[in-house]
Amino acid sequence: MGDTRTASASSEKSLMRAVVVTEGTIRVEERPVPVPPPGEALLRLRMAGICNTDLEIVKGYMAFQGVPGHEFVADVVEVHAPAEEARRWLGRRVVGAINCSCGECAFCLSEALGGGRHCPRRTVLGILGRDGALAEYLTLPLRNLHEVPAAMDDRTAVFAEPVAAACAIVEQVPALEHCRAVVVGDGKLGLLIAMVLRHHVPELLVVGRHREKLRLLETLDIATRVDGTTGDRSYDLVVEATGSPSGLKTALSHLRPRGTLVLKSTYHGPITRDLSPLVVDEITLLGSRCGRMEPALERLTDGRVRPAGLIAAQYPLRFAAEAFNHARQPGILKLLLVPGSDS
Amino acid sequence: MGDTRTASASSEKSLMRAVVVTEGTIRVEERPVPVPPPGEALLRLRMAGICNTDLEIVKGYMAFQGVPGHEFVADVVEVHAPAEEARRWLGRRVVGAINCSCGECAFCLSEALGGGRHCPRRTVLGILGRDGALAEYLTLPLRNLHEVPAAMDDRTAVFAEPVAAACAIVEQVPALEHCRAVVVGDGKLGLLIAMVLRHHVPELLVVGRHREKLRLLETLDIATRVDGTTGDRSYDLVVEATGSPSGLKTALSHLRPRGTLVLKSTYHGPITRDLSPLVVDEITLLGSRCGRMEPALERLTDGRVRPAGLIAAQYPLRFAAEAFNHARQPGILKLLLVPGSDS
Repeated sequence: MGDTRTASASSEKSLMRAVVVTEGTIRVEERPVPVPPPGEALLRLRMAGICNTDLEIVKGYMAFQGVPGHEFVADVVEVHAPAEEARRWLGRRVVGAINCSCGECAFCLSEALGGGRHCPRRTVLGILGRDGALAEYLTLPLRNLHEVPAAMDDRTAVFAEPVAAACAIVEQVPALEHCRAVVVGDGKLGLLIAMVLRHHVPELLVVGRHREKLRLLETLDIATRVDGTTGDRSYDLVVEATGSPSGLKTALSHLRPRGTLVLKSTYHGPITRDLSPLVVDEITLLGSRCGRMEPALERLTDGRVRPAGLIAAQYPLRFAAEAFNHARQPGILKLLLVPGSDS
Repeated sequence: MGDTRTASASSEKSLMRAVVVTEGTIRVEERPVPVPPPGEALLRLRMAGICNTDLEIVKGYMAFQGVPGHEFVADVVEVHAPAEEARRWLGRRVVGAINCSCGECAFCLSEALGGGRHCPRRTVLGILGRDGALAEYLTLPLRNLHEVPAAMDDRTAVFAEPVAAACAIVEQVPALEHCRAVVVGDGKLGLLIAMVLRHHVPELLVVGRHREKLRLLETLDIATRVDGTTGDRSYDLVVEATGSPSGLKTALSHLRPRGTLVLKSTYHGPITRDLSPLVVDEITLLGSRCGRMEPALERLTDGRVRPAGLIAAQYPLRFAAEAFNHARQPGILKLLLVPGSDS
């Protein structure tokens, strides 16, 4: 990798504003601007999104302490790498894969094993062992970066990470083109999953709790149902994306015997459920987490997925605590954070 | 089907001894010998096995009331079918598939959908809407019957149903020949699963709690571990067959990210678990219930599976309550019930 640090022309400051989670509280602090280690870039944030996982992290999920946030678009302002590699990246507007892996183990070398997303030595941006994107600056390995096409605005690019998570389902479920599908959950992730799946399945229903959110899908010709807590057990594929323990029961009520249940929700702590229906009905349950960035950027570029309607509000980074309070209200869609002239 | 009832030469009695579950209690009663409807046979029990599912049924699983039992070997003594069909079956020694399906719906016509084992109109012998095998007589559709080869003794044939359940895993898990596998649970089903899997996987470990039960496997060259409640998360496939809610955690501790977890245990009531590891590690969970009888009879015939060592004791049918008490003791393997001259 070499040991050269190449900075862009603009001189960056040494202190930055950052959102910090400490033992269940969240606040905005001054922190030193991070220094990129070899092979990594320093990124100056343009825009970040708040994900339900961030809310769970404040509650204690993953026992994470530090700067949360893993949905972002940013500019490369410094690169710790040989000059040629540095020139390739400096000044680029990028999004980034959030799993930082060793690149050498079996889990990194096989796409079937997750292409590094399951590396046992990984850190994960804003989730596991690595400060995240809710700050004026962050660092990521160069191999995690993906340049954003010039024509794509920040408010679209900032959705690359959750769209990648939605696209993971396309790679995990075989014979999707034959699956009558249901998405349970009309939150941010549920809606994005529906926007992705509608191009792959012959029939799609989204079951949610909020008529106004479901209305975002009706213009896309996606069938919706409010409060469909019980189904007719006829669907081949159900995606559970409620972010709530109650979603599992609703999901199973729509799924046929020997159907496939994709579990997308992560929440902190145990849930109580009768799991015998999984056995009796021989359900295939697929846990599904992150996805590759390439299919997400393709869909955001060609307009198959248009997430702009999901943006509920945009806050200055310094009002992150208020934004988190807002994000915790039921029915709120995507909240964005932007560092202003005064962050 | 016709409407002819053809009985064997021996005249059968009109009352029989039967084990009956009523609201959480189990007792032996006199009941009328059942009358086979069109397309079904009357079977005279030779031997039955007690399964963990039977113990769960007494606790309330499936809300079943009536005669439990679904592991049996029996003689065909009466057939309600045209004479030619009746002659084919009368006097045969048989085992039987336990799911009695409509034979006409999508779930019945497709092996991928379970070949009738998921028919929404099904009854299940001794489990759902149909009296079971813990009685001197039972009825089953002719198409559920499988003749037992003459050379196979009753104490082997009585294992056909649980061996079929074990064989289901072979049909459900792709690329088994590449899977380093763990079976968690050294109960009856766990041991049978290990006996089946050892012919299909390159490496097999059975984790249990009872050294004497695990010893049954060591003569088969299967690695075993006592009290391996934590694993190294390196295995491709883990089968959870403990019959206990605690088994899920042990199972996950052995499974690698993106591995396959087969869930075989059914128990009555909810369990409390943190399901986020399924999502974070993108586990594929396969619920697995019954299997086809043919692969089971093949393995019992050619000796690939030799279950005789799993028999703990044999009780007369009239002592079924005592046998159930015995079966509830920790560490007890298969208990058999046999109707004697005096049942």
